[in-house]
Amino acid sequence: MKRTDFMSLALQQAQEAARRGEVPVGAVLVCDGAVIAAAGNRTRELADPTAHAEMLAIREAAAKLTAERLCGCDLYVTLEPCTMCAAAISFARLRRVYFGATDEKGGAIVSGVRFFSQPTCHHVPDVYSGLGETDASALLKGFFRTRR
Amino acid sequence: MKRTDFMSLALQQAQEAARRGEVPVGAVLVCDGAVIAAAGNRTRELADPTAHAEMLAIREAAAKLTAERLCGCDLYVTLEPCTMCAAAISFARLRRVYFGATDEKGGAIVSGVRFFSQPTCHHVPDVYSGLGETDASALLKGFFRTRR
Repeated sequence: MKRTDFMSLALQQAQEAARRGEVPVGAVLVCDGAVIAAAGNRTRELADPTAHAEMLAIREAAAKLTAERLCGCDLYVTLEPCTMCAAAISFARLRRVYFGATDEKGGAIVSGVRFFSQPTCHHVPDVYSGLGETDASALLKGFFRTRR
Repeated sequence: MKRTDFMSLALQQAQEAARRGEVPVGAVLVCDGAVIAAAGNRTRELADPTAHAEMLAIREAAAKLTAERLCGCDLYVTLEPCTMCAAAISFARLRRVYFGATDEKGGAIVSGVRFFSQPTCHHVPDVYSGLGETDASALLKGFFRTRR
């Protein structure tokens, strides 16, 4: 599978989140070319403010590998990770982060606290932005339009 | 119960975490004067890089109240929360955060990204530092001394 295929799977997770009434963000975690975890936002369903797509994918992958550190694993996520998720990505020692749309209001990679550029960030993944941005952004805009 | 009693309970959680071989940090969540969740670090035991004491306490409380937002709830934690936990505290809409020792290397309240002072932080709790600092700090120092 190619990087665009992995991002398409993340987008599918985002679409499923939208159908559940959740903010449509999706993520997949890839290790040695295989998807080992996939998740969409479930904060409402689980009544858990930490249940962002990235957090659920990281927790699922870490549980599967019985490892706190996911060295060599890559995250594909449809939206720029927030401050909480950026720090979790660093703790999990992910190798690469591919994200779709940027999030000026809540993001923490190229927006906000830019956590990976901070001295209190002790592991920095490689970051690739803009992959699948158009689709991810359209999904989010459509979701919030129907909510107003 | 008084604030010092709640912090003593958080410190007990930290001591139990140390006995499990985890970095000794503990947290309790208080709602209407009652403890509704208590946790110590379990990142190793659960193989979950996100399983910090604060995260586990917030998730436990949110599950109990079946609510993403814990408005009116207060967190007592022995160490200054990290970037991940600071953002989770904000998402959970906690009212107050009491913490013991400061954490220059990994903290995100008075150290590091000082998340609650950032424009991408959309809910800011009241913060009280230094409560139980001496005990919390001694526990952490003792733990890391025996590890070297």
